[in-house]
Amino acid sequence: MHTLFDIQTPAALVDAGKLQGNIRRMQARINSLGVRFRPHVKTSKCLDVVRAQLAAGAQRITVSTLKEADEFFAAGITDILYAVEIAPAKLPHALELRRRGCRLKLLVDNLDSARAIARFGQDSGERFEVFVEIDTDGHRAGVKPDDAALLEIARALQGPGAVLAGVLAHAGSSYDASTPAQLQAIAENERACAVAAANAIRGAGLQCPIVSVGSTPTALAAETLSGVTEVRAGVYVFFDLVMANTGVCGIEDVALSVLTTVIGHRADKGWVLVDAGWMAMSRDRGTQRQPIDYGYGLVCDAEGNPVPGYTMTATNQEHGIVSSPASAEDDIVRRFPVGMQLRILPNHACATGAQFDEYNVVEGTRHIATWSRFHGW
Amino acid sequence: MHTLFDIQTPAALVDAGKLQGNIRRMQARINSLGVRFRPHVKTSKCLDVVRAQLAAGAQRITVSTLKEADEFFAAGITDILYAVEIAPAKLPHALELRRRGCRLKLLVDNLDSARAIARFGQDSGERFEVFVEIDTDGHRAGVKPDDAALLEIARALQGPGAVLAGVLAHAGSSYDASTPAQLQAIAENERACAVAAANAIRGAGLQCPIVSVGSTPTALAAETLSGVTEVRAGVYVFFDLVMANTGVCGIEDVALSVLTTVIGHRADKGWVLVDAGWMAMSRDRGTQRQPIDYGYGLVCDAEGNPVPGYTMTATNQEHGIVSSPASAEDDIVRRFPVGMQLRILPNHACATGAQFDEYNVVEGTRHIATWSRFHGW
Repeated sequence: MHTLFDIQTPAALVDAGKLQGNIRRMQARINSLGVRFRPHVKTSKCLDVVRAQLAAGAQRITVSTLKEADEFFAAGITDILYAVEIAPAKLPHALELRRRGCRLKLLVDNLDSARAIARFGQDSGERFEVFVEIDTDGHRAGVKPDDAALLEIARALQGPGAVLAGVLAHAGSSYDASTPAQLQAIAENERACAVAAANAIRGAGLQCPIVSVGSTPTALAAETLSGVTEVRAGVYVFFDLVMANTGVCGIEDVALSVLTTVIGHRADKGWVLVDAGWMAMSRDRGTQRQPIDYGYGLVCDAEGNPVPGYTMTATNQEHGIVSSPASAEDDIVRRFPVGMQLRILPNHACATGAQFDEYNVVEGTRHIATWSRFHGW
Repeated sequence: MHTLFDIQTPAALVDAGKLQGNIRRMQARINSLGVRFRPHVKTSKCLDVVRAQLAAGAQRITVSTLKEADEFFAAGITDILYAVEIAPAKLPHALELRRRGCRLKLLVDNLDSARAIARFGQDSGERFEVFVEIDTDGHRAGVKPDDAALLEIARALQGPGAVLAGVLAHAGSSYDASTPAQLQAIAENERACAVAAANAIRGAGLQCPIVSVGSTPTALAAETLSGVTEVRAGVYVFFDLVMANTGVCGIEDVALSVLTTVIGHRADKGWVLVDAGWMAMSRDRGTQRQPIDYGYGLVCDAEGNPVPGYTMTATNQEHGIVSSPASAEDDIVRRFPVGMQLRILPNHACATGAQFDEYNVVEGTRHIATWSRFHGW
């Protein structure tokens, strides 16, 4: 397979130059902030992508599933943070990883879970390293920095079965912002809450070595990270239309797309039918409530240049409808003939990538590699 | 593994009794209508499910990808309809299946594609069987039964490289209906349009042996199928909340669910945090514009009994938020303790099933089998 035109559609494409540029840019920024970088690998679930992140300077990773921990530990990465509050039934799996040498770190935000880990650790002769999640914006999980529960949890993580590794904050609300000023304020709040929590723990006479913050938008917007020791970010490797809407990247930075082929038309409706539906794009409609709604994705030609005005406006399982409300007069049958390839930029790279078993890596229209990715739990 | 409580979450569960009941009910209905049944296997992509459909009386299948054709042909199923207009670059794959003995049938809705198939067939010494898609409701693809293009396409499919196998209609608008009267009208229109198209072709002196109609709602709502020779339906094997909203099944018929575990709470907000997010449920929000919006899914206890009022109201990649706007006063920490398992019924079984590599088959809380499913193209 030598060019993009030899690839069967639908297929996930990764633009090699854009990927490397995105990785370099983020690592340079984290370096300039004087902190360590722990990229979140849930976006790509691909060893080739993660190796590029490590080569650029990342020393550790964040995962969203123990399957990711299994896969990346098998590839030689040892410092792994599982950044979802662990269900008690998953503790034997975590133990097995630790016993094999993985420096797996867990996350909790409540006393019941902290005690369950400490007890399980003591019973099994393993001292688990555990982060406490700090809530900075009421977005999802976490303990507020001034909540009395924070110190109770920190105290429960002192003993033979568990040790407090640090605090972790994730400003999920950054995905809803759309101006630099909003993002800077959210990033500063994320930093300040995480540092306040760490200082509250230290004020009680306990150790809190790591202060971990991050999301792609706050990592790119933060003006200072005083008191923070490490940053996490994931989707920046590929970027996507949701990120473009927040203003932290341009459309031209989006490295992931779905290659599709025109299979028909409804000229009376201005519709071009293509062979990528929601099974390829995912059902993610993340730009629906953002400044620009891209439907199921932004249409580009096979070379990756946006086709002005055209988005994927509707999907079925294996059908996509591409149209431009403003260009209904176009001769779409001649402009987009049956057999023509298009690239669709996705709303949300984490969701779209997950629909595929492999990434087809391209430079322009040249196919240079195929990278496998895994999924499941 | 002996019970549901031994299953690591998130996991896809299939209730064996409900699955068998759904398969029996649909087959009995198709039999009573006096037509053949060609179930759409894109919902399950699972040989065990398809074998149950064949055992109940189906003689042929419909697929949405050539990967499905590969997989099910390898398992001995030969009469396979690929019900998406074929991209020209996929014709060599279709040829290879036909040469190995698969009675693969293709679909077109435009003259360019019909001619491309006929030419490719002639050049390769293979006579492809081809359906023409008929548009009955302006929903997606297809030719209107009175469109002059219909006969042009039919004539292009007469020769050494292609033969017209029949006409196919799919009333996609049936998913938007919510009363029996609406569904009966849509089903009758689907039937009438398909039969009118077949008769127009026959009136021009051409053969049109198969008249294929269907969707799960119209298959269950049709009062007569006079002139139709076969029906297609897919999601009925599992059903889902979108189907329950159309009225063609009850909540108690939904055979697919996602097993998840409570990992925390935000008691101040009435939130129960669970370890199934959109990666497990999919991003499908199909009930959003229906009479009842179930968020990302309806919450049941581990035995499968709905927990009144509780839905999955928000998701991140590996986090779900379960809550009940009407029950914010509940003591959710005690009612849903950390470690408790819940089942979430999905909006759209085709999308949710696709997030998993296997189905855990259960009878009540007893785990009786693990069935693999495939994905990709």
